[in-house]
Amino acid sequence: MKITTAMHGGNYNELAKQHGLTKEMVLDFSANINPLGVPASLKQTITANLDKLVEYPEPDYLALRARIASFHQLDLANIIPGNGATELIFGIAKVTKAQKVLLLAPTFAEYERAFFDAEIIYAELAKETNFDAAETVLEIIERETELEAVCLCNPNNPTGQLINQEEMIKIADLCEKKNIYLIIDEAFMDFIEESETISMIPYLQQFSHLCIIRAFTKFFAIPGLRLGYLLTKNDLLAEALLQMREPWSINTFADMAGQILLDDKDYIKQTYQWISTERSFLYQGLNGFPELTVYQPSVNYIFFHLEKPLDLRKELLLKGIFVRSCANYRGLTENYYRVAVKTRADNIQLLTALEVILSGN
Amino acid sequence: MKITTAMHGGNYNELAKQHGLTKEMVLDFSANINPLGVPASLKQTITANLDKLVEYPEPDYLALRARIASFHQLDLANIIPGNGATELIFGIAKVTKAQKVLLLAPTFAEYERAFFDAEIIYAELAKETNFDAAETVLEIIERETELEAVCLCNPNNPTGQLINQEEMIKIADLCEKKNIYLIIDEAFMDFIEESETISMIPYLQQFSHLCIIRAFTKFFAIPGLRLGYLLTKNDLLAEALLQMREPWSINTFADMAGQILLDDKDYIKQTYQWISTERSFLYQGLNGFPELTVYQPSVNYIFFHLEKPLDLRKELLLKGIFVRSCANYRGLTENYYRVAVKTRADNIQLLTALEVILSGN
Repeated sequence: MKITTAMHGGNYNELAKQHGLTKEMVLDFSANINPLGVPASLKQTITANLDKLVEYPEPDYLALRARIASFHQLDLANIIPGNGATELIFGIAKVTKAQKVLLLAPTFAEYERAFFDAEIIYAELAKETNFDAAETVLEIIERETELEAVCLCNPNNPTGQLINQEEMIKIADLCEKKNIYLIIDEAFMDFIEESETISMIPYLQQFSHLCIIRAFTKFFAIPGLRLGYLLTKNDLLAEALLQMREPWSINTFADMAGQILLDDKDYIKQTYQWISTERSFLYQGLNGFPELTVYQPSVNYIFFHLEKPLDLRKELLLKGIFVRSCANYRGLTENYYRVAVKTRADNIQLLTALEVILSGN
Repeated sequence: MKITTAMHGGNYNELAKQHGLTKEMVLDFSANINPLGVPASLKQTITANLDKLVEYPEPDYLALRARIASFHQLDLANIIPGNGATELIFGIAKVTKAQKVLLLAPTFAEYERAFFDAEIIYAELAKETNFDAAETVLEIIERETELEAVCLCNPNNPTGQLINQEEMIKIADLCEKKNIYLIIDEAFMDFIEESETISMIPYLQQFSHLCIIRAFTKFFAIPGLRLGYLLTKNDLLAEALLQMREPWSINTFADMAGQILLDDKDYIKQTYQWISTERSFLYQGLNGFPELTVYQPSVNYIFFHLEKPLDLRKELLLKGIFVRSCANYRGLTENYYRVAVKTRADNIQLLTALEVILSGN
């Protein structure tokens, strides 16, 4: 358990400092954050409510939970809010006390930290099968005895690979039969405009072992504010999560953000416009390099493999661009990278830098 | 473990709503928050840095910890920052895994929630001995076997009673000898201008089992922002706390607040001026009622007992004033109340309302 938070994508400060680059000089493709930035509606709300910091947050976050509930057509009791998705990942690990857990490899590192005292079974995703997960996951759940939880990131981070609804229903069915909690982290799902055909939220009622984690972080570009939530129709689980919550873990501004951002139709619309054009632009651009094997993206980041020996992260950093090396993900070797989809100008800058580096100039 | 966060002082919404009172109509004496309000320096910092929310907080909070370290003349490695003091109370319970814990009764309810799977020994504080704690605590530590942690709130909440440095050194000595963690929550200590003669911070070096918890919440009037910290010279304990931290639990604005507020000399000076006049004004005012037994306050709240049968909280609420009934604290019976020290105008309003209620008009 020596994984430290410093290994996450967003933390490029150290490396940048080593090369004498300040934050402002570096274009950050390592954090998968909506480039439209902090919504103007939220900035106005914060500025108008600075004096509200003198009060404790409302301890049960009723207004926040009610707004999220109505957005997903669920009840307030089904919504457990958290200080970022992270608090909920750690919370569900504590509440389920699962001692044998299935995780994808590669996947987001915090699940392993959260289930720190469990035996972990890895569903190893292979390059040859496009890092697809569903089949391997089903096989392992069938085969393993005493599995207590399955924790899937969908779409997966860093691969961008998506388990579709049909496949996920099979997984949920099997988990239900075998009495296994199915935890799906849909932190990036809201970047898919038609997500109700992919997300498992419509199936919460059907599967009592299902929990879904969502976040405001990426879509609304507020990782600094910390707001996520967990959805479940399992009343006992919801009650246990609420009972063990540390009080006031969500700050006043995050509480407010959750109440207003789902109504910021302009921001949401602009985000869908941006992602629909820029993802394919960057994907096609990256695909144009014969040195890169680029995987089909599903949301706002693109995963690729560099087919020649080169420290691409360092080379790009020397050109003022920071990308996520995926070498420290379990199950990946070096030469795997992940880049966020950014604005057209930024995406062009990345492609131009790659052209210079890969052509050897 | 059915204590819910809704029972805390600050949460007057429910009761107020029952009586058709909105937040704005009620004068809140139940939350012990500095009435000078959110510091102007912090408001400026937040307003100037709204766009910083697009970045994750720096995962190791190095700048924040360095500033707190220099303020207390400690090293960065001795500072564990938290999402409010609460995260640290729960964190220390998890890390020490103490199975037998000494708590005061009455005291702040979160310690009991944090040590939820431990056997709790209560140091029952008696009205007859002025709710003094030191002697009882020492006796119990001497007597009990297998005690693994002692968790003291100093000054205690809600009584305001203070264990002085000389007494606390005896407690720390005994804990050190008996290999017992001593956790001191000094959440209100910074309201004492000469706190270095009372706080145990100068003795951290001497006692490897000592941890001290502090918060920005009360003094800087920012309970909505969430920032606390734990101090220890025990490297193993500090390392364990840092390792098990959920990443990014402190939001960007709280991180910034901790870096600037200790330098807001004007706010700090004005706070000491206010407390030195208003605490004695309100104490003397309350002491003037023969129906009240008022305990000597040490910081920014005053604890008293009403010597006649009357639901004082309800009576005051009907006059638009909300006070903390202490009936639900372990070890207290009804008719105990706690009020915050507020501004002169507010304090007069409380005293005037009490005069009307207690004289039976």
